[in-house]
Amino acid sequence: MADSSTHLYSPGLVGIIATESSVSNINGEKGILSYRGYSIEELAKKSTFEETSYLLLFGELPSNDQLNEFTKKVTTHRILPDGLIKILHSLPKETKPMDVLQMAVSSLGTFYNLEVSPEMVKSKKYNRDYFLNISTSLIGALGSVVAAWHRIRNGQEPIIPDDSATYAQNFLHMLGSKEITPLMTRIMDATLVLHGEHTINASTFTAMVTSSTLANASQVVASAIGSLSGPLHGGANEKVVSMLQKINSKTDIRPWLDDTLKAKNVVWGMGHREYSVKDPRANILTDMVQELFHERDGGVTDIFEKAIELEKACEEKLAHKGVYPNVDFYSGILYKEMGIPTDIFTPIFAMSRVSGWLAHWIEQIQDNKIFRPTQNYVGSSDRDYTDIKNR
Amino acid sequence: MADSSTHLYSPGLVGIIATESSVSNINGEKGILSYRGYSIEELAKKSTFEETSYLLLFGELPSNDQLNEFTKKVTTHRILPDGLIKILHSLPKETKPMDVLQMAVSSLGTFYNLEVSPEMVKSKKYNRDYFLNISTSLIGALGSVVAAWHRIRNGQEPIIPDDSATYAQNFLHMLGSKEITPLMTRIMDATLVLHGEHTINASTFTAMVTSSTLANASQVVASAIGSLSGPLHGGANEKVVSMLQKINSKTDIRPWLDDTLKAKNVVWGMGHREYSVKDPRANILTDMVQELFHERDGGVTDIFEKAIELEKACEEKLAHKGVYPNVDFYSGILYKEMGIPTDIFTPIFAMSRVSGWLAHWIEQIQDNKIFRPTQNYVGSSDRDYTDIKNR
Repeated sequence: MADSSTHLYSPGLVGIIATESSVSNINGEKGILSYRGYSIEELAKKSTFEETSYLLLFGELPSNDQLNEFTKKVTTHRILPDGLIKILHSLPKETKPMDVLQMAVSSLGTFYNLEVSPEMVKSKKYNRDYFLNISTSLIGALGSVVAAWHRIRNGQEPIIPDDSATYAQNFLHMLGSKEITPLMTRIMDATLVLHGEHTINASTFTAMVTSSTLANASQVVASAIGSLSGPLHGGANEKVVSMLQKINSKTDIRPWLDDTLKAKNVVWGMGHREYSVKDPRANILTDMVQELFHERDGGVTDIFEKAIELEKACEEKLAHKGVYPNVDFYSGILYKEMGIPTDIFTPIFAMSRVSGWLAHWIEQIQDNKIFRPTQNYVGSSDRDYTDIKNR
Repeated sequence: MADSSTHLYSPGLVGIIATESSVSNINGEKGILSYRGYSIEELAKKSTFEETSYLLLFGELPSNDQLNEFTKKVTTHRILPDGLIKILHSLPKETKPMDVLQMAVSSLGTFYNLEVSPEMVKSKKYNRDYFLNISTSLIGALGSVVAAWHRIRNGQEPIIPDDSATYAQNFLHMLGSKEITPLMTRIMDATLVLHGEHTINASTFTAMVTSSTLANASQVVASAIGSLSGPLHGGANEKVVSMLQKINSKTDIRPWLDDTLKAKNVVWGMGHREYSVKDPRANILTDMVQELFHERDGGVTDIFEKAIELEKACEEKLAHKGVYPNVDFYSGILYKEMGIPTDIFTPIFAMSRVSGWLAHWIEQIQDNKIFRPTQNYVGSSDRDYTDIKNR
């Protein structure tokens, strides 16, 4: 039944243009990722998660007043509604953090008014305050949900957010980190900036499709979280760590790598289909790995040592094929070294990517058309219903 | 910055093939909708929601044994986990039913094991039991969540499901319907069958994109619910009722229609972009409207009378333009007449469409490629970061 347009079918819509967008851009051959025209290197080094989120959402770096207003709103929403804390307490302790996060975000439509106004969409009148209020509620809440759940599942009360701390620093605080050095805050901030946006990946695309029905913003973000939760999308940095945990020691790294490559098994955290050179996000984190190593004066975990050894071995054996460690390789080992539990790496990814999702949500509803692609029908036709007695 | 492939961009991906599928097919010119090759007319008249769900999921009408097994599993899952009932009780009473439904489905990953096994996907080994167990848990749970929430928000305890009743009949029972006639059950069953699947609409597409990351089935369905919740997608039958409520009486219908058409305002429930003739699903419900009218011996609400009058007026004034009442027009007024609250029409749509979503989930992960379309970048490039003091 495939019609004459069959040749247009590209599985996964690879190469098919799904939108016009001005949020971010990738040049895979040159290894460039930019948000709103600013290179990711500059942002990761000079900006904060709050400022970069503002840039993603509104297209321009904020003035001092704009950043203060934005930060204040995000900070206010770091305090979760009591009703939401009550829901978290009612969940079985073994609930997966990504399931908790999706559920908690779904519930935000209950606690805040996050509805899209159809009149606004129809009039195409850009309402900055409206976007600002909704975005800051979601950005503020996500980190607190992740941290609160981590405490609650361990039988502890959530830690009250520290209003004087930045988003990154406060997140480490709410997780219960004992000593938060400026370097740790900087690493947290940089990884949040680096994971904030990456053109039309599966979760962002999910957010766009959901946005196109004019669903409310909590439904949009919950949908995107669903997509990010899949092991083919959000879980790569978690897999880097579990891969390293399975290797006995630093000296086993090279033989393990040889065996793995020979067997054509996956080396997690290596290569990225969007880049033929080194993932620009990985470059930034390489330096931070070194800095953290020095700050801890060699007192690092053996996972960290194995990772550094694997990085070296991979550069030697894979770099000539255009395969380099990617952002997930470094973010995984940095998080692990900072004492963050492996199973909240993907929720942290969501805390960061929510800014990108919301930027695409704003873009989508500004000039909306509901997604309704077509299919090649390859099934049966004209069958007659037979009574169950005759089947 | 748009590149040379700009001409391929189709907003909303209209006309772009997103998948090969054998679940359902639409012939818009002839007014044909078929599930797995069986016409929707036959299924709506002869089949039940359980049987049609099986057909959508597994591609064939079930044998007696297969249907019994399937129905038994769905029936078991109509009993919700205590933990989920506890969550529902903890929600503010004014929470929107679609937000509750998305949240409840998110939580199912907590109570059941709904994870996709990457090994199964990799091996492309079709595991019928696995799909059967996951699908029946979700199908069984959805109706009970909708009904339980409706009770809880009104300060009542959820009604225990009746294991001897069909899915359709039990749903009316759990909603608290006083007298359930065989015709009411048949109407409920038919509308569930009719809304079960409709090729690659926005919510189904959302389910597919989320599935493609190998997210678990609760995350997939929660994402699709997010998409369906948008007023451009799931809410049309609700709008039919509120439109009719605003018209004073039956005699005002024709002048109202003239004014509305003159002002080029929307007549909700009329026309469907997939069909240039009458929506085949609407044909089936037309007869049921008449049957219900006769069963109630004229003792119908004035909304029902206005709807029948509007249907006649539209047939006269719009049919020559290829605009006919669609499935939403009739399902809305039938639900309303059966005493179902307007704000759970869309959740009922979800209870039905979950079968289609899951059919596409099975299809997607059988031959998976993660969705990763591209974009026309139309934003800024090469901007230099300036310090906040200089902005």
